[in-house]
Parts: sequence; structure tokens; C-alpha cells
Amino acid sequence: MTAGLVYETTSRPGARRAWTCLEQCSSNSETNMTLRRPSREDLTDISQRHHLRLTEAEVDDYFDIVKDVMDGYDELDQYPDPIREVTPAVRVPGARPSREDDPLNAVVRYCSVQAVEPVGPLAGKRIGIKDTVCVAGIPTTCGSRLLYDYVPDIDATIVRRILEAGGHITAMLNTCDFAFSGGGHTSAYGAGLNPANPEHVAGGSSCGSAIAPATGLVDIAIGGDQGGSIRMPSSWCGTVGLKPTHGLVPYTGIVGFDQTIDHIGPMATTVEDCALMLQVIAGKDDTAIDPRQPSTIDVPDYRSALEGGLRGLKIAVVKEGFGMPESMPEVDEAVRAAAEQLASLGAEVREVSVPQHRWVVPIWNAIAIEGGVDSFYHGHAAYQTKGYFNTRLMSAMSRAIVTNGGDFSATAKMGVIMAHYMRENYQGVFYGRAQNQSRALTAAYNRILAEADLVLMPTTPQTAHVLPESVEKDRKTYVGQALNMVQNTAAFDLTGHPSISVPVHGVKGMPIGLMLTGRHFDDATVLRAAHAYQRAG
Amino acid sequence: MTAGLVYETTSRPGARRAWTCLEQCSSNSETNMTLRRPSREDLTDISQRHHLRLTEAEVDDYFDIVKDVMDGYDELDQYPDPIREVTPAVRVPGARPSREDDPLNAVVRYCSVQAVEPVGPLAGKRIGIKDTVCVAGIPTTCGSRLLYDYVPDIDATIVRRILEAGGHITAMLNTCDFAFSGGGHTSAYGAGLNPANPEHVAGGSSCGSAIAPATGLVDIAIGGDQGGSIRMPSSWCGTVGLKPTHGLVPYTGIVGFDQTIDHIGPMATTVEDCALMLQVIAGKDDTAIDPRQPSTIDVPDYRSALEGGLRGLKIAVVKEGFGMPESMPEVDEAVRAAAEQLASLGAEVREVSVPQHRWVVPIWNAIAIEGGVDSFYHGHAAYQTKGYFNTRLMSAMSRAIVTNGGDFSATAKMGVIMAHYMRENYQGVFYGRAQNQSRALTAAYNRILAEADLVLMPTTPQTAHVLPESVEKDRKTYVGQALNMVQNTAAFDLTGHPSISVPVHGVKGMPIGLMLTGRHFDDATVLRAAHAYQRAG
Repeated sequence: MTAGLVYETTSRPGARRAWTCLEQCSSNSETNMTLRRPSREDLTDISQRHHLRLTEAEVDDYFDIVKDVMDGYDELDQYPDPIREVTPAVRVPGARPSREDDPLNAVVRYCSVQAVEPVGPLAGKRIGIKDTVCVAGIPTTCGSRLLYDYVPDIDATIVRRILEAGGHITAMLNTCDFAFSGGGHTSAYGAGLNPANPEHVAGGSSCGSAIAPATGLVDIAIGGDQGGSIRMPSSWCGTVGLKPTHGLVPYTGIVGFDQTIDHIGPMATTVEDCALMLQVIAGKDDTAIDPRQPSTIDVPDYRSALEGGLRGLKIAVVKEGFGMPESMPEVDEAVRAAAEQLASLGAEVREVSVPQHRWVVPIWNAIAIEGGVDSFYHGHAAYQTKGYFNTRLMSAMSRAIVTNGGDFSATAKMGVIMAHYMRENYQGVFYGRAQNQSRALTAAYNRILAEADLVLMPTTPQTAHVLPESVEKDRKTYVGQALNMVQNTAAFDLTGHPSISVPVHGVKGMPIGLMLTGRHFDDATVLRAAHAYQRAG
Repeated sequence: MTAGLVYETTSRPGARRAWTCLEQCSSNSETNMTLRRPSREDLTDISQRHHLRLTEAEVDDYFDIVKDVMDGYDELDQYPDPIREVTPAVRVPGARPSREDDPLNAVVRYCSVQAVEPVGPLAGKRIGIKDTVCVAGIPTTCGSRLLYDYVPDIDATIVRRILEAGGHITAMLNTCDFAFSGGGHTSAYGAGLNPANPEHVAGGSSCGSAIAPATGLVDIAIGGDQGGSIRMPSSWCGTVGLKPTHGLVPYTGIVGFDQTIDHIGPMATTVEDCALMLQVIAGKDDTAIDPRQPSTIDVPDYRSALEGGLRGLKIAVVKEGFGMPESMPEVDEAVRAAAEQLASLGAEVREVSVPQHRWVVPIWNAIAIEGGVDSFYHGHAAYQTKGYFNTRLMSAMSRAIVTNGGDFSATAKMGVIMAHYMRENYQGVFYGRAQNQSRALTAAYNRILAEADLVLMPTTPQTAHVLPESVEKDRKTYVGQALNMVQNTAAFDLTGHPSISVPVHGVKGMPIGLMLTGRHFDDATVLRAAHAYQRAG
């Protein structure tokens, strides 16, 4: 047998040349520990739980057969894993802030990670990272007690890009427990509180990634968005948040939810800073395969595209994004006023109807619940894909569920219960039906976007919720407030279109966002329109 | 609520124009049945099995909360599923042949499916389809008792293409139980027997797809290949089988194994017929998303490429593909002689070493076992992908496991046991490590194929096995003979490179195959070299 260090191939310019080094080493079969073989009791147990109906004779035979098959696993165990390179950087893990230093609960941990000689477009910028993004050497908690002791030994691809662009990562930012809430109130590190009024929540799941730029703790933040988690807190905190086109920004090394709706993107006070960050993080993953990405990606110059103005842009106001049961009339009015302002600035604005938009929540729920929990119970991996597998996270998460499953947030528990119930009673059929519907929804929006450059609706139907009472006092409200604002945002997690929230004139002192959504991989037009609107402000 | 027929978008020329028809219908909430809600006992049971540690107070609350969440599922249940169009065709389900009509067990079912006016490149050709490929109205068994009553209501994308090309589907062909064996002996419909000597197996899993063209039952067959299942029976039966580049041919509507290694391709007596079929079935899926495919695919003219000859082609003989513990020296000699013949025909042939080739089986085993069983227990779906979900198959398979899991073949049972044991005891980490290794293996072969046009090795290290005794008599041999020939073929299921088996001069009257493997999406060069060799005879 041969073995040795194996580096994954990389073609990133400037990166250390990757190589494959295969040195002779002695066979392991005598000298190394082997994996534990199943006992006869293990086999009987597996047979019963998985419906194999093994006879005693079969158990005897498989006891021997499985021992032999596991020789192959012993071999695999000896092959050195391909190394995922991390960027050489000065890394200080730092610590949790005191409540006084972080009264709004924006920060899970202050840290300091920076290239030895930071140069590039992000030099001098303090960057906050959602605490679902792996930064080697810095704990990743996902806002949950379950991952209390998980410290990654890898950098997410975007972390590498941020460090290579000179950015200074100064904080891991608060998030709803496993990002399984839009309410901003389910983190084990405390609810993210609203900068405009701390009796209200900031919204989630990327609550810290909205609070931190809004209050000046960082210059630019990274948020994640599976149902609106970048755009909803942006709406409620008065910041700008871009959910890029699905697959434009590599998700490798970030704790996954369901790959079909996983997005990562920039949050800041200005569209300009979002464009700056997108420029750094966008593009085909050159460190691994990200199954979310298409085979080739062109990355235009987002910052120069900002200056295009609104003239000539066709903007479709989606009727069904307004007047929903949860819609505050003042929010609808503020967003319609913003649409009029866009028209006065030169855009061609008209109303369209997308009846399927009303179907978004049931479709998204089935995907987020059953897909998300499939991911949780696979250690945040997606089986049957060629993506990079973060095997230490797989191990940490899977063990954490066994020891600390009771510490999932009340919202995540709802998801876990629902997902297993639907899988075990309805064979996962509703996940499949939802994915098939999601494809039809994408086609419907593509037809609208064949005519229009952008579609427009409120980001959230309401302003920020009041912080709910503790889960013990009122579990139903606590869970109910977690996902009752995703109607509009979630549509474009399903369809993958790029979508931004930019602040409009608020309602009763609370911020609110206008959501503009464009064609696949035309993030530039989304940024351009939002920038023109914000600058006209 | 709105509802009505929803067709999925298609852009295939000549296809019926797809549309979305949304008609008003009354809300379902009063008039329709709702999904069954979980009882308190269901919740307690889920809590215990999935480590949630719910208190009684929590069970009471979730009993109410889940009822509300399920209102969304009731909504989803009312949305009409997007319709997957099937090609208008005359469809006769047919019947099982008698043993006399099919002495080698090539056929699960004779049928007749053909366009009303069959015209096109396959007109007049009898096509046999591996019984894992959905043909609407014709039972799909996967060679297993579990799917005894599954009849698809969809056509696989390749079936649509075959029918639109004028092909006449005349048989569903035998396969190892759920394709989980290369031995050819595990089908519930009987072992596929070798045309050269029926005391030997034909090899698998696509046993019928080799026997049927070899014996003239069909002109061209479709086989599937996850570890070599097209190429191994081709090697053992003296036919030609091409595993196309991963993703070149859409897999939509075919029973899945693990999406990262799923391949479907042509099997025939000549390279020419394989090229003809590839031309028909290759190209981007225009009926749905196939996550195995890249975002764009160029399909060249494979038949005109056949005539290029061998001159100028660089062929690398991979040392590690010979002289393995299972290798018959005569097979190695026959294949080396074929390599010399290729050189005499104008190719530049030299030997190379790919040390990682020796790692293939442990890597492939972990992926095939844990990924395959992940697929089985998800009703052959891949969660977290945007692919088409065959929800009736999901339902049929998931129910079949509960009622008939004991009827998995002995080989599949080994996989099911191993996969659950590794998931439950080692957190799926070995699946992830294997996928990471597979990516490194792909990079290693890409380096070889940057210099060489093709790599060469024996398809199988040995000639066809003797038919083993019944599983009850000797389970260990029965299982052991299922996967002890995949060393060379499985490498290119992992890497995705196109790979063909073409017959060489046999050994002691039994056929054997030469395997030629090329660059990603350069299937044309693979076909060209194989054709030149076969024609030179």
C-alpha cells in the first residue's frame, strides 16, 4: 500500500502550488488499530430497526461477511485525507464579549484573523462572519448549544477569499439556533436585539450580521440565507443585505442546511459595501467542488455596474407580495411609495401577478424542514453529492445530537419532529413534491423576468416583532414568531434568483426593506438599482 | 387559493408547448381530507428515537404546534403536481417470458413501446432497457421482489429520446437486485447466464443488457453503471459497453443509486451501435434538472468521430490495473497483447503508474454502500438536490422496505447492514472521507489524461465466474462473488471519465474486455479508439 500527504488540487492564482505526494509507507494491517466490528447483537438490532428480518443463520454469516467488508474501511482509514489548505494568517480565537460590551447580542465571539500582510480591496475593513461559517481555529457554534465544542480545522472558501483580499475578521456573529428561524430570538447566545428599539428583535437568522454593521461593530458582515435570513434582519434593522444568485458564491466550508436553498452573502449599511464584498467572494470554487454552483461562472465588475442608474430598467411589482394576512398596511404603503420613487428616478414600473407566489410558504416549509433536518442528521453533509465533506463537523454534529438533542431550540425541535414524522409516515413524498413545485415556481418567475429586469415587493410583510416571552412561558408564540415573515424572501431561496433588501422610509420609527430580485447571475442589476435608490434616498 | 394543471417547462424542439394553467378552484380547507396529524404517542416515540428528550409539557405544546404546521402540508397536498410529459406512444406492457423463451434469464418482461409513427435514427431497431429505467405503464422491478407492484407513470428522459428517435422498446432487461452486485447472480428473476457458457454468470449488474444483444434478442440495450455494471457484463459476455462521462446522459427517471456514481449508457455488439445510441440519448436534460449534469453540454457527432483511427492517439497503460490479487494472468496477457495491437495500428502506447488506483475499492465501497443505502432508504431520491423527484417511486420503495425488507438480496442486505452500522457508529465520516478521496483520485487521473488521450487496462481482472451455489447453501461465496471484479471499472465511476469495454481475444473460450477511458466529455475519442480496434478485429 502507498500513502502520504495528499493535497487537493487548486488553481487559484497566487495560491501555494498544490501537489500530490505519495510516499511508501508500510502496510497498516498488522500495526494499526482497526475499526470496531459489529457484534451479533448489533446486527440483530440493525435488522430489527431497518426491516431486514435476518434469521439467526443470516446473523452468523453476516457477522463474518461484515468483518471482511470492514477490512476495506480499515484501508480507507489509513489513507491520508486530502488536505484542505488554510490561508496563512494570524489567528486569535478571542472570547465571548460581556453583556455590557455587546448589549444587543450581536456577537458570539470577538476574534482576530488577518493575513500577515493584509493588502487588497478589503484592507482596513473589519469583517464580521455569521457563526455558521468555518474559520480555522475559531469555534463555530451555529448559535446552538449542540456545537459548543466544535472548532474547525478548515477555512470556508469565502474566508480564504476575504483574508486574501486583506479583510480583518474581528467577530463571529450571532445567529438563530442552526439558522432555523427568521425571528432572531432563538440563539443559545441570546436573542439579537433591534438597534432601533431593543424591545424588538433584530430578525434572523443572521441577526448579528445586521446588528453589527448597523451599530458600527464591523464594516461589512457575512450572512447566510435559506429562507430570507440575510434580507429579513436587513429589513428590520435598516441595513442592506444581498442574497446572491444560488451558486454564485461558494458555500464550501459553511454549515449547510439544504443545498438547494443554501446562500451566503454580504450585509452592510450601503449597497456599495455589499458590492465590494460580493466582488471578493463571488466565483467558482477553486478549492473544492460546490455542488450548488454551475460548471462555469462569469464574475462581472459589480462596483462599476453600480453607476448605471435606474433609467431603462423594467421593474415588475408583484401583486401577491402585498396584502397578505401578515402584511402591515403601512409596510405595503411604504414599499409602494418606494416603487413610485423608482419610477420617478427613471425605471419603468408596472404591476404583475404571479399566482404561484401564494404557494411559497408550504413549498418552502417542506423543503426547509425535511431537507434541513436531513442535513442536521447527516452532520450537515449532503450525501450523494461530490462536494467537500467536512468530516469533523459531521462527527461533532452527529455526536451532539445523541448527547444534546434536547438542546435544539424550540423551533428546531419543531422541524425535527415534523421532518421525522413526514418521512416515517409519508415516505418523504412531500419533500419531493415540494422540490418539483419549486422548479415550476422558478419557471414562473423566469417568465416574469424574461420581460422585467427586476421584481419588487416588501422584504418582510411587517416591521420587527417584539421580543417574545421565554420559550417556557409561551412555546407556541416563540415558535410561531420564528417563521411568519418569510413569505416573500423564501420565494427566491427556492428559485435561486439574486435578491436584495434595501431600507425604505420606516414605519413608526422601525426600519423596513424594499426587496428587488433579478435574473439568475444578474446580481449586478440588482445592486445597481438598489444603489441608485439608496443614493437618491 | 388557485390551482389547476401545471406543466413543467420544456424547450425541446418539437415537443408539445408546455404551459401553466392556473384556474380558480375553491379552497380545500373545508372540503378535502387533511393529512393525519401525529398523536401524542407519535411525538413521544419520535422524541425518544431522535434524542429530543421532550418533556410532557413539550409534547402537549408540540401536539398543537405540529397540527398548525401541517396546515401547510395540507395546502401543498392540494397543489397539482407539475406534470412530467410522456411521449405519445403505443404501449403494451407484455409479460414475463417462460424459461424456454429466455433460457439465459436476459429478460424480466417482454413489452412493446413505440411511437405511433416511428421515424428517426433508431427506426427499425429493437431496444432493450435495463429494468431500472422508468417506462410509463411498464413495471419497473430493479430485479427485486421489493418493487413487485411498482408501475411508473413517467418516462425517463432517455426513454423519451429513444421513442422520439423511432426506437422500439421490446424488453425490460434483467439486472442484479437493485444493481447492488457485479456478479449477475442476485436478481429475483434469476441469475443472468453467460451466452458463452451458461454454467457461468453473465456478470452484472446489467446482465440482461449484455445477454440480450449478444444473443440477438435486441439490437441495442441500455445499461446502468455505478461500479462497472455496463462494462463488466460486456467484458464477460463479449459485447461492447460504454459508460459515458458522468452527466453526459441524463439520469432523470431512472432508479438512482448514489448520484455521484450514477451512469446510464449503451450496450451492443458493435461500437458503432453504441455511438448511434449515445447520439440519441446524450445531452442536457430538457425535461427537468439532473443534478449530475453540468450547466451546459456540447454533444458532438459521435458517429462521424468513429472514423478517426488510432494514429496520433496517446494511450497510457495503467500498471496498477494489472497484476492484482484477483487478476488472471491470461487476462492480463490478452489485454497487453491488445495494447500492442493498438500500437501496431498507430497509437502511441506507454505504461504509467497511478498509485492511487490501488485505493479504488475501499473508496468506492464506502460511497456505494453508504450512498446507495442512503438512496434506498430515501425511496431512491437524493435529498438536497433540485432534481426531478419521482414521488410514486419514493412511496413504493419506502413502503416496500417496511413490508419486504427481508427480500433484499443477500448482497444488498450486506450493504444495508454496513451502511447503517457505519452511519450509527462512525457518523457517516467514512462516506465523507471517501468522497474527498474520490475528488483527489479524479485529480490524479486528470493529470494522467492531460498527457494521454486514453488510459488502458483490463475491464475485469478475470473471466466470468461460475454460477455460485444458492445463497442458502453458501452465503459467503454468494456475497463475495458480487463485487470482486470492480477494481478497474469502479475507478471511473468515481472520477466520471468516459470508459468503454470492447472485446479482446478471449481466454479459454470465455470473453474478456479491454477498457479504454478518456477525458471528461471526450466520449468521442473513447468510441473512436474502440471502433478502430474492433474493426481491425
